[in-house]
Amino acid sequence: MGVVGGGIGSFIGPIHRQAALLDNHIELVCGSFSSHPEVSRRSGAACGLPENRVYDTYQEMFRQEMQLPADRRMEIVSIVTPNKYHIEPAIMALECGMHVVLDKPLTLTLEEARQLVRKVEETGLQMAVTYTYSAYPAVKEARTRIARGELGTLRRLYVEYTQGWLSERIELQGADNARWRTDPELGGTGGTIADIGIHALHLAEHVTGQHVTELCAEANTFAPGRQVPDDGTAFLHFDGGMKGCLTATQIAKGDNNYIRIRVYGDKGGLDWCQPDPNKLILKGFGEHEQTIYIGKNTNLSEAAAWNTRTPGGHPEGYIEAFANIYRNFALTVLALRQGETPTPLMLDYPTVYDGLRGMQFIETMNASNSNKDTKWTTWIE
Amino acid sequence: MGVVGGGIGSFIGPIHRQAALLDNHIELVCGSFSSHPEVSRRSGAACGLPENRVYDTYQEMFRQEMQLPADRRMEIVSIVTPNKYHIEPAIMALECGMHVVLDKPLTLTLEEARQLVRKVEETGLQMAVTYTYSAYPAVKEARTRIARGELGTLRRLYVEYTQGWLSERIELQGADNARWRTDPELGGTGGTIADIGIHALHLAEHVTGQHVTELCAEANTFAPGRQVPDDGTAFLHFDGGMKGCLTATQIAKGDNNYIRIRVYGDKGGLDWCQPDPNKLILKGFGEHEQTIYIGKNTNLSEAAAWNTRTPGGHPEGYIEAFANIYRNFALTVLALRQGETPTPLMLDYPTVYDGLRGMQFIETMNASNSNKDTKWTTWIE
Amino acid sequence: MGVVGGGIGSFIGPIHRQAALLDNHIELVCGSFSSHPEVSRRSGAACGLPENRVYDTYQEMFRQEMQLPADRRMEIVSIVTPNKYHIEPAIMALECGMHVVLDKPLTLTLEEARQLVRKVEETGLQMAVTYTYSAYPAVKEARTRIARGELGTLRRLYVEYTQGWLSERIELQGADNARWRTDPELGGTGGTIADIGIHALHLAEHVTGQHVTELCAEANTFAPGRQVPDDGTAFLHFDGGMKGCLTATQIAKGDNNYIRIRVYGDKGGLDWCQPDPNKLILKGFGEHEQTIYIGKNTNLSEAAAWNTRTPGGHPEGYIEAFANIYRNFALTVLALRQGETPTPLMLDYPTVYDGLRGMQFIETMNASNSNKDTKWTTWIE
Amino acid sequence: MGVVGGGIGSFIGPIHRQAALLDNHIELVCGSFSSHPEVSRRSGAACGLPENRVYDTYQEMFRQEMQLPADRRMEIVSIVTPNKYHIEPAIMALECGMHVVLDKPLTLTLEEARQLVRKVEETGLQMAVTYTYSAYPAVKEARTRIARGELGTLRRLYVEYTQGWLSERIELQGADNARWRTDPELGGTGGTIADIGIHALHLAEHVTGQHVTELCAEANTFAPGRQVPDDGTAFLHFDGGMKGCLTATQIAKGDNNYIRIRVYGDKGGLDWCQPDPNKLILKGFGEHEQTIYIGKNTNLSEAAAWNTRTPGGHPEGYIEAFANIYRNFALTVLALRQGETPTPLMLDYPTVYDGLRGMQFIETMNASNSNKDTKWTTWIE
Repeated sequence: MGVVGGGIGSFIGPIHRQAALLDNHIELVCGSFSSHPEVSRRSGAACGLPENRVYDTYQEMFRQEMQLPADRRMEIVSIVTPNKYHIEPAIMALECGMHVVLDKPLTLTLEEARQLVRKVEETGLQMAVTYTYSAYPAVKEARTRIARGELGTLRRLYVEYTQGWLSERIELQGADNARWRTDPELGGTGGTIADIGIHALHLAEHVTGQHVTELCAEANTFAPGRQVPDDGTAFLHFDGGMKGCLTATQIAKGDNNYIRIRVYGDKGGLDWCQPDPNKLILKGFGEHEQTIYIGKNTNLSEAAAWNTRTPGGHPEGYIEAFANIYRNFALTVLALRQGETPTPLMLDYPTVYDGLRGMQFIETMNASNSNKDTKWTTWIE
Repeated sequence: MGVVGGGIGSFIGPIHRQAALLDNHIELVCGSFSSHPEVSRRSGAACGLPENRVYDTYQEMFRQEMQLPADRRMEIVSIVTPNKYHIEPAIMALECGMHVVLDKPLTLTLEEARQLVRKVEETGLQMAVTYTYSAYPAVKEARTRIARGELGTLRRLYVEYTQGWLSERIELQGADNARWRTDPELGGTGGTIADIGIHALHLAEHVTGQHVTELCAEANTFAPGRQVPDDGTAFLHFDGGMKGCLTATQIAKGDNNYIRIRVYGDKGGLDWCQPDPNKLILKGFGEHEQTIYIGKNTNLSEAAAWNTRTPGGHPEGYIEAFANIYRNFALTVLALRQGETPTPLMLDYPTVYDGLRGMQFIETMNASNSNKDTKWTTWIE
Repeated sequence: MGVVGGGIGSFIGPIHRQAALLDNHIELVCGSFSSHPEVSRRSGAACGLPENRVYDTYQEMFRQEMQLPADRRMEIVSIVTPNKYHIEPAIMALECGMHVVLDKPLTLTLEEARQLVRKVEETGLQMAVTYTYSAYPAVKEARTRIARGELGTLRRLYVEYTQGWLSERIELQGADNARWRTDPELGGTGGTIADIGIHALHLAEHVTGQHVTELCAEANTFAPGRQVPDDGTAFLHFDGGMKGCLTATQIAKGDNNYIRIRVYGDKGGLDWCQPDPNKLILKGFGEHEQTIYIGKNTNLSEAAAWNTRTPGGHPEGYIEAFANIYRNFALTVLALRQGETPTPLMLDYPTVYDGLRGMQFIETMNASNSNKDTKWTTWIE
Repeated sequence: MGVVGGGIGSFIGPIHRQAALLDNHIELVCGSFSSHPEVSRRSGAACGLPENRVYDTYQEMFRQEMQLPADRRMEIVSIVTPNKYHIEPAIMALECGMHVVLDKPLTLTLEEARQLVRKVEETGLQMAVTYTYSAYPAVKEARTRIARGELGTLRRLYVEYTQGWLSERIELQGADNARWRTDPELGGTGGTIADIGIHALHLAEHVTGQHVTELCAEANTFAPGRQVPDDGTAFLHFDGGMKGCLTATQIAKGDNNYIRIRVYGDKGGLDWCQPDPNKLILKGFGEHEQTIYIGKNTNLSEAAAWNTRTPGGHPEGYIEAFANIYRNFALTVLALRQGETPTPLMLDYPTVYDGLRGMQFIETMNASNSNKDTKWTTWIE
């Protein structure tokens, strides 16, 4: 695996690498870690890479790696850059015949996303998008139980993602992670919607198997002078008749990454929350509330068990969820390389189409928010 | 105190009586407990009332009690009947010169509510409306801290109230509490909004001191054939610039009375939840999250301390919150009777104007929900 | 009801009175609230008592009340004084033919406790001792399930009660509640064991139905110069073969009233904790952990339902638990007065024999702690 | 890294490997995964090892690897076998000049442990023992705060570890993990003490910096016919004057891996619990309880920050804690190889001396438990 971005100073870069390596299916062989060559070099050294596999630019990385014999060259590329710099390296990687892991959101704009879908379809290569929260085993258990019909007809969904780190304009105080996220040129116009709202949307659609058809949204910019929304809320109508309420905010001062989903059907409900990620609460089944504790010794659905690593009671966290995406992606690539058909469990990672839906969501949210009169905005394909 | 309604079989009747008696300021002297005279008589006996103070109808109760010398006659009336039967006994009580405690919602319709406001203003008598959740000491602490400016400029509010007991049409299976709530003739057209949505609204306005000016709502009826909404959601715009999201549902299968409020300002946030009512979580103040445990030995604001009864760590619950309303109301009545001015702490209970806002909320929600095109509906006065 | 002690400044006095009045079976008619006549008078006035029923001393109260006609005189006495002053008013009350509610511990010494048992037996009157924690409905549910054999053969019990308010020697800084508790003359030699250890012991024995036969204990005095233990721990052997570990401390700085019990049998386990008093967690039954939420609409055992007051999800707290003792005691007294046999549900309150066991526990703990060599100390009858 | 044990069917084997690989400092190069050659081969293949580096026995592994040039040979050995099979491969590895990671307990007997200490001292090689729970970042934060004196003089410690999986004799039903743990020949005589009690002991000593000097213990065997204890409890006296209570049980039906530590000093207290591993609760500091949420953006002590991987609110779990041990160990080995002095942060992993203390603890617990008369047993060196 080669990486683009995620060098020293990045929050999410090391997470990607740890997640990729955890299962011993992926080896880190090269990288272009930063647009600053010096940072890239220091980052590569810190990762234990030889100097000649650490590149000053990703353009150079692709050029040089293609010079290497196929069995020494990187086979997959992981792209962990600000949103603006997703499309170009992704296209380059695909054109080099490499599979791609891309951090969300897929691209800067919906138009770019459509372009990337076409490129993936043309090349027939694999693309994973790291909607991490839907890779927790408890989330897989929730999804399976709903798919089996255990909750009956779905009625009501609440999904929320609250953070507080953008409560103040830290982008003006040198916080690089905040800077590009709040700059429409680098992060897009979605702001909070693009950064975490799409996580909530993907979680909702992944867990329920239903898709939003129209929505009514409001986005807010609370921090004075900020150019993108730092808060948003939406009512959602789903194709299966379920009604949803989605909230995402980055100005909830004091909140960490509080992402929670609750789904209620006519036969029962489910509650999952990242601060307690190994629990899935079942509501309305039998006389009393039930709590599933995820673990290798728990009686879980196949999808949840496949994505579980520890004995019950030993917490699994964010890196393990991340690693589930990388592992499933790697097993798919390996199977394809060996001419085998990947199993459904291997294929269970978010794809370019999930990435596309995220970009459509941002666009639809923006449209609904801009329209102060019309209540419902149809999903923008 | 005399009571109207709340006889055998009622959930909330005994709560009212226990709450009223807890502090030894109020004595139960008479009642008309049910529209079924036989039930009324058995209920009165169970309360230890003498037979001649248990009445077959409330009309008779007012007539008979007015025959008694003023110092033996009931002085306050507590009305705990289905919504349709609020206005008539309330007006009668006021016309008899009695102070009134009324369960929420104030009346069946907004028009009735306006009428009741006029009657209260004419008579100059006291009326308390039992929006119980805002009487928890932790909620008073939240309110005080916000009023003091500790959270800075308020930005974002989430308030939610989820129940599951109306997930199925138990109103068809003999559940009397469900029957009248889901019958527009008896409970009004608000359904869930009238039953619990107004609790959420009052809690939000009480805690923040801001009032809704316009909203965008959706209400749903999930249980097939039901005539009133059993679910609703709204975006709220407040006069102080705060944006809110309110959810209320009674079809969240497996949920008990989950009412929670979160408020975020530019200086910090607050989180309170009924399942853990003696905790108030402070977010974004200092380096770490802080948890206030309510107790007589905790350093609390005057408003919270006044409404606290136990040493820290000894949980106070719903009846104590209820009792705070009754006690403050009783102390106000006592002070007035003695020609004294009630203190602000005594006057801290929801009044007929809070009741009126609840009815306006139901009306505004209905209007917004009916209008599938226009996004924002102005608050209906 | 007349009261001895619990005047202005007392933590527990108002709790007793609120709990007694909640259910309208008991009326407060007189009191001697303090050894300081002035405090007694002010306290009585605050309770709304007429001046002539507020007494300067309890001796006077008994003398004067006995002059009243039987139907106007207090019928039950609630004693809420420092431990040293339990025995005398209790004996007086019994000799006056009055039933007694006594705060724990029963007396100052085991010898006094034996004397009180004899007096109760001689007079045939009722005595309730306020081991409050065992009166929570969830605790009743736990007890019933164990009695039914649902947990199988009991193996292991953990019971703990931690507080932090005596971490420092606040008894030297004017804290009256601390002063008498840490003075062996007024509070006895048990210190923390007498103050909260006996709550843990009673909870353990009440829930499991088993009794301690021998124990191995260590008590500590951490605050320099304090004359009684402020911390203790014991291994417990029960007559039914269960092994227990009991911890009680008042120097756990920052802890409120954290009392928790866990019981494990060969078929399953239970977990209950006062900070979340309306939940009972069932472990090892069926595939997943189950949580019972106490409520009038929950399917509960008869004993739990009888002691439950609110619809599910509306928290009940410490005062309600306290009130359960008073109500059951009052119903017993009423039944006896009317020549009826109290039902087992009415009789479900801690008696003088439970009080005696508490005193035996203190004595056995002291003996074990004093003996630095012998491991096991037989229960002292 | 080469591994001994932990093949297919092992719970802990895959955890070790994932933890070792996470940080890209260690490469898996060979292994002898099982005493069944066929299982070893299949396990090696599943790990992606070439056939010629998967060995039928560990004896063969050491022999063959020593034939390889030093730069291709495994440099560290991870031993994840039943307790009986710790000493022999560990000694072999040390004699081959390899550093060792050993699962706890160190050995089968205390005598073996002493022997291993001598061998480590003779060879000057590194040995890490995987007491995982003390490697959580929140635990490091706790340790640092105590070392800094923030809690003042330590008084009281509670540490507990409860599991339920050995509630029944599943060792008779084919559960291999249970079989060797309950067989004194394979797992030693400590039973639960050796399996999880020593985790609790290490956590207590690591967090507080104090060491047990004497104890009073009781061990129980609840499952009929089992040959080793499945439950134990001890009072602990520490060299710094702190008093502790340690409980460990494997018959707490329905419990997962509930390990919790609470420490109270005269200035404040701490509470940490594995089910919520990213929280550290501070008690008695300032007016309100404080909760530290571990995260890269939290202001943490150097030791905690060093062992933290994710942004706040993204849970880290058991594998990350495990990985901290492996990473620190690997960095130490790397530094030594390069002739550098490892930093204190690198050296922060449990060593053979910590392993030795675990074996001494088992021996002292056994001695105390056997002695039904004497209360206190001096720590056996």
